[in-house]
Amino acid sequence: MFYFVYILPAARRRSPLDTYLIGLDYGSESARGVLIEVATGRQVASHVHAYRHGILTRNLPDGTPLPADFALQNADDYTEAAFEILSRLGRDRTVEGIGIGFTASSPLPARADGAPLSRLRPSDPHAYVKLWKHNAQAYADAINARPAPFLANFGGRLSGEWLLAKAAQIAAEAPAIWAETDRFIEGGDWLVWQLTGREARGLGFAAYKAQFSGDTGYPQGVVAGLDRRLATPLPVGSAAGPLSPQWRDLTGIRGRATVAVAVIDSHVVLPAIGAVSPGCFVGALGTSAAYLYLSDIQRPLPPGIEGMAFDGSMRQLWCYEAGQPSFGDTLAWFVTTFPRGSDMQESFRAYNEEAAALAPAAGRVVALDWWGGNRVPFADGNLSGLLAGLTRQTTAAEIYLALLEGLCFGAKAIFDLFPESGLVPERVLMASGLARANPLLIHILADVLDRPIDIPEIANATAVGAAIHGAVAGGTVSTYAEGAERFGTRDIGRVLPRPDRVQAYRSAYAVYRDLSRQKPLHAAMHALRRLES
Amino acid sequence: MFYFVYILPAARRRSPLDTYLIGLDYGSESARGVLIEVATGRQVASHVHAYRHGILTRNLPDGTPLPADFALQNADDYTEAAFEILSRLGRDRTVEGIGIGFTASSPLPARADGAPLSRLRPSDPHAYVKLWKHNAQAYADAINARPAPFLANFGGRLSGEWLLAKAAQIAAEAPAIWAETDRFIEGGDWLVWQLTGREARGLGFAAYKAQFSGDTGYPQGVVAGLDRRLATPLPVGSAAGPLSPQWRDLTGIRGRATVAVAVIDSHVVLPAIGAVSPGCFVGALGTSAAYLYLSDIQRPLPPGIEGMAFDGSMRQLWCYEAGQPSFGDTLAWFVTTFPRGSDMQESFRAYNEEAAALAPAAGRVVALDWWGGNRVPFADGNLSGLLAGLTRQTTAAEIYLALLEGLCFGAKAIFDLFPESGLVPERVLMASGLARANPLLIHILADVLDRPIDIPEIANATAVGAAIHGAVAGGTVSTYAEGAERFGTRDIGRVLPRPDRVQAYRSAYAVYRDLSRQKPLHAAMHALRRLES
Repeated sequence: MFYFVYILPAARRRSPLDTYLIGLDYGSESARGVLIEVATGRQVASHVHAYRHGILTRNLPDGTPLPADFALQNADDYTEAAFEILSRLGRDRTVEGIGIGFTASSPLPARADGAPLSRLRPSDPHAYVKLWKHNAQAYADAINARPAPFLANFGGRLSGEWLLAKAAQIAAEAPAIWAETDRFIEGGDWLVWQLTGREARGLGFAAYKAQFSGDTGYPQGVVAGLDRRLATPLPVGSAAGPLSPQWRDLTGIRGRATVAVAVIDSHVVLPAIGAVSPGCFVGALGTSAAYLYLSDIQRPLPPGIEGMAFDGSMRQLWCYEAGQPSFGDTLAWFVTTFPRGSDMQESFRAYNEEAAALAPAAGRVVALDWWGGNRVPFADGNLSGLLAGLTRQTTAAEIYLALLEGLCFGAKAIFDLFPESGLVPERVLMASGLARANPLLIHILADVLDRPIDIPEIANATAVGAAIHGAVAGGTVSTYAEGAERFGTRDIGRVLPRPDRVQAYRSAYAVYRDLSRQKPLHAAMHALRRLES
Repeated sequence: MFYFVYILPAARRRSPLDTYLIGLDYGSESARGVLIEVATGRQVASHVHAYRHGILTRNLPDGTPLPADFALQNADDYTEAAFEILSRLGRDRTVEGIGIGFTASSPLPARADGAPLSRLRPSDPHAYVKLWKHNAQAYADAINARPAPFLANFGGRLSGEWLLAKAAQIAAEAPAIWAETDRFIEGGDWLVWQLTGREARGLGFAAYKAQFSGDTGYPQGVVAGLDRRLATPLPVGSAAGPLSPQWRDLTGIRGRATVAVAVIDSHVVLPAIGAVSPGCFVGALGTSAAYLYLSDIQRPLPPGIEGMAFDGSMRQLWCYEAGQPSFGDTLAWFVTTFPRGSDMQESFRAYNEEAAALAPAAGRVVALDWWGGNRVPFADGNLSGLLAGLTRQTTAAEIYLALLEGLCFGAKAIFDLFPESGLVPERVLMASGLARANPLLIHILADVLDRPIDIPEIANATAVGAAIHGAVAGGTVSTYAEGAERFGTRDIGRVLPRPDRVQAYRSAYAVYRDLSRQKPLHAAMHALRRLES
């Protein structure tokens, strides 16, 4: 009983010129590039380059040991990857635009001439890129201790993963490095600077990771001397400048090759999957789940939502961020902890097959999906996963089904925050691999949300999204909608809610919702975390 | 690190006479008998006889189909079993006393001459024994709707498994049978009547299952005409009379062969394991768990405890009853739902081995042990099992350990009700197979209770306990203490709490206790049960 409707792609205009776009997707372990033919919109080549030093968690490249909880990268790895990818994809080709998606917040200290301090002080951990997963929570906690208006759009909470906390850490722990730091800059912005010779920062990084606002600028007085190490950012889709002469020589790229300002990797994907208009609610379901909601009207941050900014994801739109810290991870935990086959794939297949035959909430078991804590709406990492309703008749497949349902209930708890604040999701899209790999999950999500769910089918989506930013910046297209139409996904699967299940899930969700909000239950989970083990 | 201390049995007196005791244990599927040599106290023979018709749930012996939820037995199966066992064990032997333990409440309608109505009306379901597991809950609910003083010792709640509810059901659903019913009598009492020719009822059945009290008699006005179908009971250990001439002829038994009044099977075991004095707290850990607490002082029923009666289990003692409806069943559910081997034994071995190596609450997971609902202290069958504290790091063995701990926490929640009411448990004994089969469980229980736990080692304990009742009734011994000393267990293992774990379990139990009492959580579990499935 699966409803799966394909929306056929519209016919495409043809361009007479043999020109190209390049999109770069800088992830945690490697960078990926795609080459798109402007005339046809087709991906004609792609290349992946793993960073030479990967993620530095134990030692610096020269062997210097690292403190616990450090997660660093070497900025020169980024330019090496750019050289490898751009020269392979772009040599002797006419490139109209180049766009970059990048992990965030992954800032580094640099000199006024662009040299990363890690090149000058290779034995000092604080001279390196602090990768997004490097967490300076103690510094964030200290900042959060004083209520500050610049956190109004972020629920009053600064994350230890963000730029301000990382700047505070360097200023406190490595004052000599901080003194030598002329620019404190996100890795994506730094790469744009290297490629163009111009420091042009992206508004997405500045807003979501450094709490910049168009009205009031960067937060003042949080970290001494930080302000002069930053720069006023440009909206996404802005041209940072053409690829520099040195990089044209290095890579053999021809044409105007306009480089767009860099964009947060989880946001840059939006135009590739056709999510360019107000009212789009986009989920990226992976090991964790991230949700973006686009709006052309500003409302106070809905309680529980993590952050919001304007011009930082899509032009002239507000984009709200939320997420579930453990999503696919929770399912993988279950099928590996209680295997039903010789490997994870076989176990997933067996559990999915059995669960697909069950009615909604068949075991009358409910799961609170907090295997990695809760981010929205409770922002509480000390909450934990829960199963209730277990009896001697409960089967393993009923528990697996309850986990699928619990994850979808967690998504609905996030989704519902928007209409409750007057922000209406018009269209729901689920990107990323899990949406394709686990159709049962998406069907349950459609039933739980009581919404059709669009599943964009596209390879290298993040890199394609970056290329569309390059197309906007370089003038190949005049709007993101046009960029999405010409270079984005051509197939969108649609999963419809099953009317016979919608009502059953409404009742089951009411139980989840009530249980999830019980403060004494939260307190018991906190007490569990405090147990010595 | 197991502490297991054997208490050596005291030397025993020898009797010069070659005489015997017989104990009969009437269970749900079969009856078991043991023959004990009075001189040595040794079990010299035993025999098991399965009931010809077992438990009747679908059809009567003549093929008449049964309504759903009926669980009946055929009274003539009981006498057939008695003939088989008594003649095999007792033929040509001098028997001093015979005792009987019997399931309860398992009443039947009989004529004034002792004939069970099922012999006269073989096609009417209401003419048969209503086995303990036959539940007339609707009738109990109707009785419970009006607060009644006779339920003061039973927490104000009549169970649908008890005699009053079953009488109400016959009176309402089969008035013709009820009109023909001269005596409404527990199966155990009926068997004693058959063996001796005298209707002598046991006080245990009358008190726990028909709410008889020494002060006020049976409840009045609950079921019309019930009172004249009952009879004033005798304290446990009373002689009903000698084995009748007919039964002597049938079985070849010689000697005075005094038959004791029958006793509830879960209570009759007490003297066999040496639990004969005030302050004993006895657990029978099986698929479910039952607890008995003996006291020589009367207190109002501790809130949450299920029932209490005087002279119904041990002479001149109060005995309080409590239990957990799913105990070993919960562990069996886990190891069969998530197997770790080719059969249940192998899975138990694997999980126990891994869990034994873990620290208390190693996974910071807590389980509410309500896989079969909760009896004490909430008397709520719609509560269900819960696991909280789950993360992506939680292992299967940590969950198994949490289940062991949750069951022990549930036991402690019951145990603590007694001292809170001024009733002090002086000694803790755990009888039954699970205590021997799962030493890890008992060690955790000792740690959680912070008490030494005695594990009596004895075969056929229930039947031996019945034999000791026969010895008391027949004058072989003058007290239960003497009976226990001469015919009861000779080995008692003792498990000591491990001091390094007691404190850790105190903290973990505090989380369990707090969580278990959260009324909104109970409400969510109720809502789960109401979901359509």
